[in-house]
Amino acid sequence: MIIVVSPEATPQDIDRIVARVHESGRQTHLSTGSERTIIGVIGPDIPELQDMFESVPHVESVHRVTKPYKLVSREFRPNDTVIDVGHGVSVGGNEIAVMAGPCSIEDEEHIIATAFAVKAADANILRGGAFKPRSSPYAFRGLGEEGLTYLATAGKLTGMPVITELMSVRHLDAVAEKADIIQIGARNMQNFILLDEVGKLRKPVMVKRAPSGQIEEWLLAAEYILAQGNPNVILCERGIRTFETAYRNTFDINAIPLAKSLSHLPVVADPSHGTGKWKLVAPIAAAAVAAGADGLMIEVHPNPDHALSDGAQSLTYASFEQMMRMVTGIAAAVERTLPGVGAPAAAR
Amino acid sequence: MIIVVSPEATPQDIDRIVARVHESGRQTHLSTGSERTIIGVIGPDIPELQDMFESVPHVESVHRVTKPYKLVSREFRPNDTVIDVGHGVSVGGNEIAVMAGPCSIEDEEHIIATAFAVKAADANILRGGAFKPRSSPYAFRGLGEEGLTYLATAGKLTGMPVITELMSVRHLDAVAEKADIIQIGARNMQNFILLDEVGKLRKPVMVKRAPSGQIEEWLLAAEYILAQGNPNVILCERGIRTFETAYRNTFDINAIPLAKSLSHLPVVADPSHGTGKWKLVAPIAAAAVAAGADGLMIEVHPNPDHALSDGAQSLTYASFEQMMRMVTGIAAAVERTLPGVGAPAAAR
Amino acid sequence: MIIVVSPEATPQDIDRIVARVHESGRQTHLSTGSERTIIGVIGPDIPELQDMFESVPHVESVHRVTKPYKLVSREFRPNDTVIDVGHGVSVGGNEIAVMAGPCSIEDEEHIIATAFAVKAADANILRGGAFKPRSSPYAFRGLGEEGLTYLATAGKLTGMPVITELMSVRHLDAVAEKADIIQIGARNMQNFILLDEVGKLRKPVMVKRAPSGQIEEWLLAAEYILAQGNPNVILCERGIRTFETAYRNTFDINAIPLAKSLSHLPVVADPSHGTGKWKLVAPIAAAAVAAGADGLMIEVHPNPDHALSDGAQSLTYASFEQMMRMVTGIAAAVERTLPGVGAPAAAR
Amino acid sequence: MIIVVSPEATPQDIDRIVARVHESGRQTHLSTGSERTIIGVIGPDIPELQDMFESVPHVESVHRVTKPYKLVSREFRPNDTVIDVGHGVSVGGNEIAVMAGPCSIEDEEHIIATAFAVKAADANILRGGAFKPRSSPYAFRGLGEEGLTYLATAGKLTGMPVITELMSVRHLDAVAEKADIIQIGARNMQNFILLDEVGKLRKPVMVKRAPSGQIEEWLLAAEYILAQGNPNVILCERGIRTFETAYRNTFDINAIPLAKSLSHLPVVADPSHGTGKWKLVAPIAAAAVAAGADGLMIEVHPNPDHALSDGAQSLTYASFEQMMRMVTGIAAAVERTLPGVGAPAAAR
Repeated sequence: MIIVVSPEATPQDIDRIVARVHESGRQTHLSTGSERTIIGVIGPDIPELQDMFESVPHVESVHRVTKPYKLVSREFRPNDTVIDVGHGVSVGGNEIAVMAGPCSIEDEEHIIATAFAVKAADANILRGGAFKPRSSPYAFRGLGEEGLTYLATAGKLTGMPVITELMSVRHLDAVAEKADIIQIGARNMQNFILLDEVGKLRKPVMVKRAPSGQIEEWLLAAEYILAQGNPNVILCERGIRTFETAYRNTFDINAIPLAKSLSHLPVVADPSHGTGKWKLVAPIAAAAVAAGADGLMIEVHPNPDHALSDGAQSLTYASFEQMMRMVTGIAAAVERTLPGVGAPAAAR
Repeated sequence: MIIVVSPEATPQDIDRIVARVHESGRQTHLSTGSERTIIGVIGPDIPELQDMFESVPHVESVHRVTKPYKLVSREFRPNDTVIDVGHGVSVGGNEIAVMAGPCSIEDEEHIIATAFAVKAADANILRGGAFKPRSSPYAFRGLGEEGLTYLATAGKLTGMPVITELMSVRHLDAVAEKADIIQIGARNMQNFILLDEVGKLRKPVMVKRAPSGQIEEWLLAAEYILAQGNPNVILCERGIRTFETAYRNTFDINAIPLAKSLSHLPVVADPSHGTGKWKLVAPIAAAAVAAGADGLMIEVHPNPDHALSDGAQSLTYASFEQMMRMVTGIAAAVERTLPGVGAPAAAR
Repeated sequence: MIIVVSPEATPQDIDRIVARVHESGRQTHLSTGSERTIIGVIGPDIPELQDMFESVPHVESVHRVTKPYKLVSREFRPNDTVIDVGHGVSVGGNEIAVMAGPCSIEDEEHIIATAFAVKAADANILRGGAFKPRSSPYAFRGLGEEGLTYLATAGKLTGMPVITELMSVRHLDAVAEKADIIQIGARNMQNFILLDEVGKLRKPVMVKRAPSGQIEEWLLAAEYILAQGNPNVILCERGIRTFETAYRNTFDINAIPLAKSLSHLPVVADPSHGTGKWKLVAPIAAAAVAAGADGLMIEVHPNPDHALSDGAQSLTYASFEQMMRMVTGIAAAVERTLPGVGAPAAAR
Repeated sequence: MIIVVSPEATPQDIDRIVARVHESGRQTHLSTGSERTIIGVIGPDIPELQDMFESVPHVESVHRVTKPYKLVSREFRPNDTVIDVGHGVSVGGNEIAVMAGPCSIEDEEHIIATAFAVKAADANILRGGAFKPRSSPYAFRGLGEEGLTYLATAGKLTGMPVITELMSVRHLDAVAEKADIIQIGARNMQNFILLDEVGKLRKPVMVKRAPSGQIEEWLLAAEYILAQGNPNVILCERGIRTFETAYRNTFDINAIPLAKSLSHLPVVADPSHGTGKWKLVAPIAAAAVAAGADGLMIEVHPNPDHALSDGAQSLTYASFEQMMRMVTGIAAAVERTLPGVGAPAAAR
């Protein structure tokens, strides 16, 4: 951290600033230039220290120089993390993971049928929501634990690992038992108690970026989990909130290559939430893969106009298949593969 | 809700749309204009229905006409809600509530001293954080239950009701036991499980607006609590996240009169978080009262440059007193009073 | 400016960075700490230099320490600038300027009638648009030069200085001839050629903040004008664009006290555009004055539901009068006055 | 347009609303449902009419049903517009246009050398700024007309059409004479006088989206030009302003497929401004092509750390070549070609 001293400060004022830094347990390095005195603060740049030093009299500004996260950073671990999510599927390697399925699990038959359909189109992870965060208390909020059971059944029948959202510490055991990957939803990116708890597990966790979450905050949310000992974290970009009203969210494509350069963790793209419009899902899925995404999360519904949630952004079976064909070519262009591709024709 | 049919739709297509609406349990009213056919959908405008109808073929657009919340709305309850928060203090009446105290409770002596100081300057509710949401896992996260005890002691000694944040259902009992008002922090505005739980209590709850929360979502968060049976909800505007980097948050002054026109619930302003800079706190507090706020929440610390959190936005005792003097005049201009003002001098 | 060198840089790399800075004509001050080497760059912090140095190999980050503007800053001129706008009216002094009138000048009678009405309610500057920026090419775009003539007539008849928008260098002479204050609209805040041109005049210029203009960019826009020799610049906050869709713009109340602390220029508030809803205009006008605004700009129309533009945010004569009464009390509370107030009744 | 009448309105109130609509020259279609009366307004949905009707008493809300633009819309012209920009180059066809060159033209030798370098890497349009919008009045603002001459020379020597920014009507003739494509910069997207003027030419015009420009406003800006008679308009997405500070702008990838579905005009992507960081340029260029962009605009500089502007986002010759190789594969995957690709080797 660098503290810039106000030009009007006397030597005594500067001494007081330095003393304040020492009091916080840090060493200093003083540099007296012709225009400004600068105090280098030695040690990791914790945001709370920045805030503290900014309120010391005669401090003009405080600049953070090092990153506030450690375990998630590329510096800490230069190689890509590859996460085994079960059933022989990995996230973060050369093969792009494809998570597909309905927004909400609506009944047992529905999730099983969808699971077989997305698997036939080469998805390799099944998604489905049992606990649904909804802005209105009067909306359908998911089937809860019953839904988890249906999802697990569908996963078993198709041989796919399953991912589902954990909304509260209250459902921790139930979700951890049935899910292969635990999803922390965008609204819970900074539910720190929940992050602590999934950090105590060893099960893979996917952290969605909050609609107003800065990249740094997103990586710090992942850091919470790694700091508790769970290294199996996947990041997921799902669109941010901006002034543009033409789509539900603005998919932040810049976040894909930036997060991958700052962190060793795999980065998945969710173009369904990132656009809110099914017609935009395929081109944004293709864009995300071109930009380096390690996976896709896609909402698929047999009958989007009857979906209990997020119908407007769900693909039909046919449009999902079409998307997969488009993305396969893009993946090849960036020397990646999609599930099912490359395997001998006979095996399919 | 109004469904606008695409111009190319045939009468059969329109029939199918109408059938889809009926299937969802709603009645329709068909209006065939010279340019467009419009289908009125009768009944409350639930956002999920809008989403569902948007994915029906040949639907051009779906417009919500009525508000998605009910219990929190002015239509439902035309008169201002006044909430008794204990110790003879109300929020929502003619007197403007002043919640003041440190960001975090640092030790017993610290919170007691601050409590007496803010009371001397006419604050009437004591704030203090025991569980602190922090973007970094390495930052000070509050004293936890120990902090709650100190806060309760300080409240008792000064005769002030106390408000503190509840971060997780896990701490529900502990917080509900010690706090007079339970605060739902900005990051938890859409932690729906937590909203449900505080809805089952009868204790006053203050819901902070999320940094990217739209007014409608904020009111829906309050609706969650009222829908569970707890009518004692206070809204709190604390700044939103925008492109401007000159302050931590952008205090949304428009939200004060708008929320008060849409809802009967009291609206409190938090200029400390709404600016992140102590020099802006007094003018924004004055502005909020001028715009109709029913209360203020202010961070005060004996020694801001030693605060364990949020020092840069905390007032000293002296600057808090100065702010109170400034705000008193503003309150009078809008025919409101501040605590302590108007009482006979002898009583103070 | 401070350049932080990457930890992996060799002494030769550092020499190359220093050489690059010297090549740009600046001196350096080198500080070798235990963790990082820091290069202080002496002289004003021009953003383009920051950008240039950020692209030099082995530079980790570049931090600006001083402000990029000079003439508009409080450091340059500690006392408030008071601008004489003619007809005995000043902006920036103790009296709060009140600019009122229709969005667009619709015909001669309309602007004259409105001028007398707002003057009767104690406005002291007349506003009216002759050249109107409209997002659609098919909308009413103002009466042009004819409108300017009507506005000047209305100003003369009522004895009020007039303010109107200049949209293009093409209309410079016509507008400069008829207007007492030239308004640079929000969409033109970074029309640098236009800023240069009004900088060559000595006529007062009011610069509206762009909907996505940062405070620093707004002050730099004003700096363009002062740099050309025109010191008579007024700043105007009129709302920024955010994710909130409940109002046309989000009035940024923080900008008022911050701009006034960073700059000596007067700051005016436009709650009509800052909200887009007439019901919010009075409370936001009151808030702006409470926060320290030096003036108000208010849209008033005899018949808002017949206004050719911005009817939804225009006050009627009666609601404008009511707003003035409300604001008068607020002004008194912050030891300011409104026009007409304090003058002997006979003189009115 | 649909007007929703407030539930409390009497039949007389409704008559008055209808009369007001008729007065504006529009016909109505009345629909009396069981909950709300709805008034359909027949004719194009001009935003100013919406605003006007919103201010009529007893109007609850006004909904636009049709798009406010016409000439730029897919409905008006279902097939993609292909624009001949001279020297045998088209924008909007199967071949993806590649505009490359320095941010600013720095001297004659510099632009000529860069032109040959980008041509060697298969760019087919040369970019270079002669008039530069800069947020600070103290920054380098381009070589002006001298720069135009150098650019034209470089274009002739390499046989490439050239694109350069027009900042003001003042430079209209000079720019129109030398440029093959006139660029309207992001800050001028709503400089309506400038849009009118380039609309009177027949020269191709590229309209950059403003940092806070909604898709609808961007298309309306293009509509200004077409409405004056110039059909040769290219759209360019170059990043929007959001809360994220990790990059200069947030490239809005959603805008590419959405703009192409709403309009028949070609859409170009500018990942240099859309990220502000050279390391992100190649992945975002690839993403834009995957999402359907018709062209790329890339800043290339022989020596980015000596660039007079935008060095941090400029590619070197080598990194530009590398980017072109990456993008070539992506283009093939979406059945598009890049310039130079597919032509017989001898012809290159």
